Amino acid sequence: MAAGRAVLLLLAALGPAAAVWPQPQAQRFPAGGGRCPLLPRRFRFAAAAGSAVGPGCAVLEAAFQRYWALLFAAARPTDRVSAPQRFVLVPSLAAAGRAAARVAITPENEQPWGTPCTQLLVFVATPGCDGFPSLDSKESYKLSVSEGSLLLSADTVWGALRGLETFSQLVGRDENGTYYINKTEIVDFPRFPHRGLLLDTSRHYLPLRAILETLDVMAYNKFNVFHWHIVDDPSFPYESLTFPELSKQGAFNAMTHVYTASDVQMVIEYARLRGIRVIAEFDTPGHTLSWGPGAPGLLTPCYLGKDPSGAYGPINPILNSTYQFVTSLFQEISAVFPDFFLHLGGDEVDFTCWKSNPEIRAFMKEMGFGEDYKKLESFYIQRLLDIVSSFSKGYIVWQEVFDNAVKLRPDTIIHVWKENSPPYVEEMANVTKAGYRALLSAPWYLNRISYGQDWMAAYQVEPLKFEGSPEQKELVIGGEACMWGEYVDVTNLAPRLWPRAGAVAERLWSNATVGDVRDAYVRLADFRCELLRRGIQAQPLYIGYCENEFGGF
Amino acid sequence: MAAGRAVLLLLAALGPAAAVWPQPQAQRFPAGGGRCPLLPRRFRFAAAAGSAVGPGCAVLEAAFQRYWALLFAAARPTDRVSAPQRFVLVPSLAAAGRAAARVAITPENEQPWGTPCTQLLVFVATPGCDGFPSLDSKESYKLSVSEGSLLLSADTVWGALRGLETFSQLVGRDENGTYYINKTEIVDFPRFPHRGLLLDTSRHYLPLRAILETLDVMAYNKFNVFHWHIVDDPSFPYESLTFPELSKQGAFNAMTHVYTASDVQMVIEYARLRGIRVIAEFDTPGHTLSWGPGAPGLLTPCYLGKDPSGAYGPINPILNSTYQFVTSLFQEISAVFPDFFLHLGGDEVDFTCWKSNPEIRAFMKEMGFGEDYKKLESFYIQRLLDIVSSFSKGYIVWQEVFDNAVKLRPDTIIHVWKENSPPYVEEMANVTKAGYRALLSAPWYLNRISYGQDWMAAYQVEPLKFEGSPEQKELVIGGEACMWGEYVDVTNLAPRLWPRAGAVAERLWSNATVGDVRDAYVRLADFRCELLRRGIQAQPLYIGYCENEFGGF
Repeated sequence: MAAGRAVLLLLAALGPAAAVWPQPQAQRFPAGGGRCPLLPRRFRFAAAAGSAVGPGCAVLEAAFQRYWALLFAAARPTDRVSAPQRFVLVPSLAAAGRAAARVAITPENEQPWGTPCTQLLVFVATPGCDGFPSLDSKESYKLSVSEGSLLLSADTVWGALRGLETFSQLVGRDENGTYYINKTEIVDFPRFPHRGLLLDTSRHYLPLRAILETLDVMAYNKFNVFHWHIVDDPSFPYESLTFPELSKQGAFNAMTHVYTASDVQMVIEYARLRGIRVIAEFDTPGHTLSWGPGAPGLLTPCYLGKDPSGAYGPINPILNSTYQFVTSLFQEISAVFPDFFLHLGGDEVDFTCWKSNPEIRAFMKEMGFGEDYKKLESFYIQRLLDIVSSFSKGYIVWQEVFDNAVKLRPDTIIHVWKENSPPYVEEMANVTKAGYRALLSAPWYLNRISYGQDWMAAYQVEPLKFEGSPEQKELVIGGEACMWGEYVDVTNLAPRLWPRAGAVAERLWSNATVGDVRDAYVRLADFRCELLRRGIQAQPLYIGYCENEFGGF
Repeated sequence: MAAGRAVLLLLAALGPAAAVWPQPQAQRFPAGGGRCPLLPRRFRFAAAAGSAVGPGCAVLEAAFQRYWALLFAAARPTDRVSAPQRFVLVPSLAAAGRAAARVAITPENEQPWGTPCTQLLVFVATPGCDGFPSLDSKESYKLSVSEGSLLLSADTVWGALRGLETFSQLVGRDENGTYYINKTEIVDFPRFPHRGLLLDTSRHYLPLRAILETLDVMAYNKFNVFHWHIVDDPSFPYESLTFPELSKQGAFNAMTHVYTASDVQMVIEYARLRGIRVIAEFDTPGHTLSWGPGAPGLLTPCYLGKDPSGAYGPINPILNSTYQFVTSLFQEISAVFPDFFLHLGGDEVDFTCWKSNPEIRAFMKEMGFGEDYKKLESFYIQRLLDIVSSFSKGYIVWQEVFDNAVKLRPDTIIHVWKENSPPYVEEMANVTKAGYRALLSAPWYLNRISYGQDWMAAYQVEPLKFEGSPEQKELVIGGEACMWGEYVDVTNLAPRLWPRAGAVAERLWSNATVGDVRDAYVRLADFRCELLRRGIQAQPLYIGYCENEFGGF
């Protein structure tokens, strides 16, 4: 097995400059090794001859600027290039009190090439630069670092973005402060097309800068969907043009804790420039208490005996005015958010209030629903889905909508979030057996922290590990890491997300065979050091340090 | 019970400007109410006539400057004083999906006094300003806010610091942006004299600024001991004058990840100015692996069969050179750290390596220790304690030193850290029954995070709830919140510490009768908003918002 060992040693010697997170589908290191220096003043990104996308493409131009800065300008002011080596700490599986081994991962024994590499040529096969990424976008790319030429080629501009991120992680810096890149060939593409991250801006308001920074780090992790759970019971920060009272009455503070139309546009464009889709969720008919003050008559008045109690429940599904409101609001939302998909929620509808209300009970009788309030919920959802369909939108719904047997368009995406009722592997089997596309979040509620290296559990999830045919497995379009906001705001968002969400990112991007936790630890710890260098407040995996710590010192 | 209700309503109406964290021992609101405005330009702190401490006292002068800035200059740049009300969110005990009630806590129906309050007079009974706080320091104070006069009186300058913090939390701001303080009388003193916080700078290095900021927030919480767990197995960041090789060889990075002599002096002085003692811990004979490279011969060589394995264990207790080294090092440490107490560690000594070493086994035989390696540990600890005593220092040790029946000076403080072996309430009983003073940390390992409001468990600990006589209870000098560094560095230290450590702070300062978690929630949530206003990255307790969010928006 000497050959195998030699490869391992080579990988170790190539070190961080060759470790990419998430791991590419295929990476080859030519037998002879070798590397070339990059000189910041002389290095540039450029469109290759014959590329369908070139100068004037905002997505590409902006990415070139970002990555140039990340490569050569992101080091903290106190960066000491004289620091001789970069260490990572291998997690000690022995009892506490043992020193973890330090592994030197500085490239050595590499022959620098004589000539610096002066440009990365980017070739894009398909025209298109002004549109938005979609579920069908091709994100594959090839990156070739060989003697005298650096070439990145991709089908689309979105694939080029993924390749630029990979390229930026391949560049290292030697003991003299010289930037370099090792000779390598990468062929890469995502395992799943939907790789999302959910932020909740209702339980706590997140300032715009926190959302934009999250989009940055999502791009570093090759996430491609920002699921914006924008409103919920506690607050309604979305400033609606059609119904401005919703945020005026429903935001924590109508002046300071809101997203204006221009804020929303900024998020959408910032995401687009990084190849990230923005899928907004306006969850109904439950989770809408904050909508009440700004939309009189929308919510169901709850009763205590014969009289209204003063409290309100889910959206009132028996009034025509409700559907007029929903139509107008979703018409606006459909226009504001360009993605084909909206997330319509539909989870956790509490029937207590509906049951208490005599008019609702009368309606149930009239409709022949008996005591089955799931039928009433389905009645509402059905009409909502028809409304949204009329705006030429697709929809994603939480699993209850499927569980409650609402009639769905066959192209509906079911979002599986319950961990144990039923076990999520069963739900994945059920959803795909019924022919619907499935999106997995159940094991990836990253808000649910626990002590220790809890990223490992997230990492070891296998989305296709459920009983089902190959056709069923094909229906799994990906998953989302969720960061619900009960205990999270701008003070702890970044350290809770990063690098933990990176575990989900690699699971959704890399090959199914990439699963060794110890190997992932070393690469993720190194990637986290790179995040610190880029100014991201990413928390440590375990004992150790980075050459560039957060804030620089 | 109308009177009781009236008081409650009054407290609610007085709102955040009257809520102090940790809650004072006694606070009275005069029947008529009333308040006076404070005008930033005209307001000043000053020594009262006859005060034993006055102008020229650095502790007091620096505190006056700090608190003036905290009162009038700490609001974020985007602070909107026009925001009409300040809300806190009462935690909903109902199922998720219910809107939590918002309680308006802006003072209303208060008659502003005509005349602004222009100064807080501070009277200190006992001279002394250049010394250090100690276990015996008196921290009691009285604060009187009455018509035409604001008076703070204390036995010592340390008590004056506690009173200034309380004063700063009493000042509110009304809807017009006017600062004010409500009429009140406070008599306050700590329940326990030792109220500590442990930071671990070995598993991750914490930059100086993170330590200094922690000292700031400790003062806001009336903590008075910084337990600096400065070195351990993973790294040795303390730059020793006597043994410079320890950090040169043992720090993560000898240039960037070290505490120089001037860093240490800055920490000690910064703490002193806030009435905080700095107790350094140099834990031996275990937890010393990082000492090895810089101190050849100090650690025990471990054996694999008949040959040294290349690994090292605890400090070698059988060599004279060990005690020469320990004497020199602790002589330096005793001089550098002015507090009477050193923390000598003594926890988790692994006997495996000692058992493997033939010279150690021979020594065991010679000494008649049989197979009882606890006797060898005691042999080392005994000599260490004698050495430290010879430098006129007192010592604190982890509980194993007591458990292993080492002969101790009667004034030794035993630090109880094990939660379940034995249950810590038993250990508290055992330690105090043996006549030693006890310090509690077992239920306060704040590094051990869990999902949800885990501050509540820390809050509900009662340090004196163990079987024992009143004399035994008297021996409990307090406790420490611990933030061990396996998973904590500068990226997540502040949000993990604050406001969670505040739960321990109130438990150790306030009266034993202060224990209602719902009441504590409202005050702690409000205190957390105040921490944000002061620029501290304190995480949220639960759903809601603050008028001044972190970073300002």
